[in-house]
Amino acid sequence: MFSLGVSDHFMIAHSFADPFFGPAQRLHGATYGVELSVRTPALGPHHVVMDIGALRSILRSVLETLDYMNLDEHSAFPNRTSTSERLAQYLAERVAEEVAKVPADAAPPRPASLCVLLRESPVAWASYEVSLPSQEGA
Amino acid sequence: MFSLGVSDHFMIAHSFADPFFGPAQRLHGATYGVELSVRTPALGPHHVVMDIGALRSILRSVLETLDYMNLDEHSAFPNRTSTSERLAQYLAERVAEEVAKVPADAAPPRPASLCVLLRESPVAWASYEVSLPSQEGA
Amino acid sequence: MFSLGVSDHFMIAHSFADPFFGPAQRLHGATYGVELSVRTPALGPHHVVMDIGALRSILRSVLETLDYMNLDEHSAFPNRTSTSERLAQYLAERVAEEVAKVPADAAPPRPASLCVLLRESPVAWASYEVSLPSQEGA
Amino acid sequence: MFSLGVSDHFMIAHSFADPFFGPAQRLHGATYGVELSVRTPALGPHHVVMDIGALRSILRSVLETLDYMNLDEHSAFPNRTSTSERLAQYLAERVAEEVAKVPADAAPPRPASLCVLLRESPVAWASYEVSLPSQEGA
Amino acid sequence: MFSLGVSDHFMIAHSFADPFFGPAQRLHGATYGVELSVRTPALGPHHVVMDIGALRSILRSVLETLDYMNLDEHSAFPNRTSTSERLAQYLAERVAEEVAKVPADAAPPRPASLCVLLRESPVAWASYEVSLPSQEGA
Amino acid sequence: MFSLGVSDHFMIAHSFADPFFGPAQRLHGATYGVELSVRTPALGPHHVVMDIGALRSILRSVLETLDYMNLDEHSAFPNRTSTSERLAQYLAERVAEEVAKVPADAAPPRPASLCVLLRESPVAWASYEVSLPSQEGA
Repeated sequence: MFSLGVSDHFMIAHSFADPFFGPAQRLHGATYGVELSVRTPALGPHHVVMDIGALRSILRSVLETLDYMNLDEHSAFPNRTSTSERLAQYLAERVAEEVAKVPADAAPPRPASLCVLLRESPVAWASYEVSLPSQEGA
Repeated sequence: MFSLGVSDHFMIAHSFADPFFGPAQRLHGATYGVELSVRTPALGPHHVVMDIGALRSILRSVLETLDYMNLDEHSAFPNRTSTSERLAQYLAERVAEEVAKVPADAAPPRPASLCVLLRESPVAWASYEVSLPSQEGA
Repeated sequence: MFSLGVSDHFMIAHSFADPFFGPAQRLHGATYGVELSVRTPALGPHHVVMDIGALRSILRSVLETLDYMNLDEHSAFPNRTSTSERLAQYLAERVAEEVAKVPADAAPPRPASLCVLLRESPVAWASYEVSLPSQEGA
Repeated sequence: MFSLGVSDHFMIAHSFADPFFGPAQRLHGATYGVELSVRTPALGPHHVVMDIGALRSILRSVLETLDYMNLDEHSAFPNRTSTSERLAQYLAERVAEEVAKVPADAAPPRPASLCVLLRESPVAWASYEVSLPSQEGA
Repeated sequence: MFSLGVSDHFMIAHSFADPFFGPAQRLHGATYGVELSVRTPALGPHHVVMDIGALRSILRSVLETLDYMNLDEHSAFPNRTSTSERLAQYLAERVAEEVAKVPADAAPPRPASLCVLLRESPVAWASYEVSLPSQEGA
Repeated sequence: MFSLGVSDHFMIAHSFADPFFGPAQRLHGATYGVELSVRTPALGPHHVVMDIGALRSILRSVLETLDYMNLDEHSAFPNRTSTSERLAQYLAERVAEEVAKVPADAAPPRPASLCVLLRESPVAWASYEVSLPSQEGA
């Protein structure tokens, strides 16, 4: 089994409506360190899991939908529910959609999966892993 | 698949009785960096894997049973057998017992597993992964 | 010359009024990793720079004045001016005030200085260094 | 499930023949941080996954076949194909061969697997995981 | 005293002509992690050491003169002398030239200095610190 | 100003006699991450601060006088006084003695200084800086 990983980060404000979150009900924020990895049992024709430049561009473009934003006003997290777990899921699903559009020779051979891990502080992180659909047109 | 992770550390003295361990038969010690993660396929009612505050408290309370101690005198490691692997197993099993007591709405949906990874130096680590039992009363 | 250092972190929301800051004029946030160090040319009676437990407690108590807050509403940063540099200065000055109250045997021998370094992302940081006043009553 | 991990690094020059790699077609180089881990469901007679000293020695001896070399001239990567993925696979397979020769009491109980993860920069990594064959003579 | 820092990296091939360098006389390579910091006793009109966006752009543009290159053929390091120390000096001097061109309101108040620290492996680094000239036209 | 740095680690047991140290009066231990750096305003004839191989060997040989030991029985720390600060001072002074014996062409040009920084946990460190004497025979 092979994997390929890239990292980036984004910075957001948010708060939580649910009293479960204690002081995090107040408006605060976070720098999220992002680690995105793709797993596949075989390499493609260029001897890589996928085009690492494409993977970094996809990650950046997906992060742009959150970066420097107040997530309390973001449509993907209604009712102030932008937990790290849901952020990881949101990012993984958006990245998976974009990876599905990568030309076959630069895309991960199937079956493949991807995982987004978010580091919200030096002592806390969360991740979400999702299978990649079969390649379009394949 | 989701995961949630937290980190902490503890500092102990120990030695090994088994000649297999060479210079580590001498009384020495270690700072163990601890990375505890919980995996579950679904989120609970608060949109999290589990209550991260509860997870950090459980980890700290379990680490207190080792921190600032000489493990050569600890009942869990008879005959001076406190290898990093056995320390990881001891901690994972104690944490699993405590997570089983967390109220359902703050606990990881089952099936779930947890992993304790211990970093003993910049160049060495060990881990142990265990399934969580079904929730009490569920 | 000796130094002693401790680390912690805090999470805030903020924005900048000055158009100089481009997209950071939008409400966003950050996790700040904090590295606090104290420098002194000699050790005190306990063979340490100062009481590390007192230093960690002081740092935490000062961070509590910012943690989980929206700095746009904080009196220390009027007109939305909470740059990393000003945050470092604010923290260093508050910590210096508290270190001045530490009992002499647990305090850094003078002359001493302290530095607060803030990591706002994996690729950016800022710091502020300040001299400690002479010990009260000395 | 237990794991044991060790780390090291090596420094090489290389280039890629395939136009797919853009500027990396030029002769350049990399420091590869190496993280090698072994997984097994049970511990051996010394309460460890395997002899960590043997594991570190094996890793170093295998890295010596690449360290301070120009991989464009290395027989394992014909036609300038030393991608991080193929480097991880090469290393994992060489390490697996050597682990198979470790005396039974110091070797990982089977079934076991190992994984080599290579960090080529602060923002990119690749890994390869392989099952270990049954122990020789077992 | 304030500082502001940013990080980046570059990847090169090189070798050393001097027998002093042992196995590093062979053509090999490195990933250099770069940490660039600017120090100044006062903040500018925007409450920052200098424009962090400008600093990151300058660093990237200067790194482009080395990235993905064989330094044995680079005019700045005649006779295969691209030690980490000389690389740090080269980068610091080029960055200082560019910082001198930054508009006054976005530049570090003088007197100021800058430091380039290069991490060539997990266990080795080098740095060079240089004073910044007075601002042009000031 | 140039610097050159190398890192290593060592593992010890110790305790403190002084009630000032609270729970650390109990026998415990630590992994100390070590960062050793040498500063000098000029490079030597090989375009380096000093021979990095010699520096790593000196550091390892000095660490061998502490590694895998119970410092409560070590003659350099009478009355159980092996604080991180005193350990850093001990190591810096021993390293300085050894660097003074390095042949002139491989040694740091004078004036020079060196600093030993010890990381005892993810949240605490200490350092000691000392000037290097003039070169023997110079």
